[in-house]
Amino acid sequence: KYDTFDVLTQPLAPPENFAPVINKIYRSSFPQPNNFSFLKKLKLKSIFCLIPEEYPELQAEFLKHENIKLFQLGMSGNKEPFVKISSELITEAIKVVIDPANHPILIHCNRGKHRTGCLVGVLRRLQKWSLTIIFDEYRKFAAPKERPMDQQFIELYDETEIIKYAEENNLLPLAWE
Amino acid sequence: KYDTFDVLTQPLAPPENFAPVINKIYRSSFPQPNNFSFLKKLKLKSIFCLIPEEYPELQAEFLKHENIKLFQLGMSGNKEPFVKISSELITEAIKVVIDPANHPILIHCNRGKHRTGCLVGVLRRLQKWSLTIIFDEYRKFAAPKERPMDQQFIELYDETEIIKYAEENNLLPLAWE
Repeated sequence: KYDTFDVLTQPLAPPENFAPVINKIYRSSFPQPNNFSFLKKLKLKSIFCLIPEEYPELQAEFLKHENIKLFQLGMSGNKEPFVKISSELITEAIKVVIDPANHPILIHCNRGKHRTGCLVGVLRRLQKWSLTIIFDEYRKFAAPKERPMDQQFIELYDETEIIKYAEENNLLPLAWE
Repeated sequence: KYDTFDVLTQPLAPPENFAPVINKIYRSSFPQPNNFSFLKKLKLKSIFCLIPEEYPELQAEFLKHENIKLFQLGMSGNKEPFVKISSELITEAIKVVIDPANHPILIHCNRGKHRTGCLVGVLRRLQKWSLTIIFDEYRKFAAPKERPMDQQFIELYDETEIIKYAEENNLLPLAWE
């Protein structure tokens, strides 16, 4: 069964919305079995999954086979008006994502648009990017389903706790090399 | 005058369409002086410029000040129907871009959409990405000015010469680390 992970399909199929974020931090939609050959090239140490549902069996087997550690914090996206993305959970996720001990790491939700986009937006704030460019990047990946509430979340996110944590653990600034 | 390069503006302004491509290869639109503080964080060794016009004075001074080597191959974009992007020039550019001796390297044209998008598309082909995902990435950066001719260029580009060159110089596969 595991042999399917070793077949090099030609060509490789990266997951939709796959992209490098910075250094050894990557983002994507939920990886499917046909993406496994591609993912192996990243030599991942960890995956951070942002959805609440249990990790599917095939994906869990792939992680076990490749010795990839799974972090999961199930959070809801900004489904207006009553369900909101959790600032506390994003902070907990960022603590894991910026820790070089977990790199290379892939962040994903279902589509790689909204929850992943919010987390990457907060990472960009920690890099001190202007909101204009943060939102431009958010919209590239969220199109054609950009959510104003996601962009407002990124703008209003309170960095105090994560900055304190990062300083105590020497995790900032994020390096490009 | 050079002092303006050292002022850390808060927040940082990445160039429009800035993104990491793979490892220490980056892409963007034409960097402007307000992007210099951000660019310094990348610790660039080289810049590859894909437009034919002479490099502007302020940008040239910045490169000199930061000891960044400028490569330039002026090429026209796919302005239908009579001006076409040059396959030969893209091949010459790729030879420079995939050489680790030139990393970290930033590739740019004017908008970071078309000429840069064609070059990155060819890089993705060298990584053996499926055309579907290559085109999806191309369109993220080219929107709302996606050009079918650019995508056809990427699809029909003949890799023979660059693969031969890369094998002779041990430059492939491109590594994620």
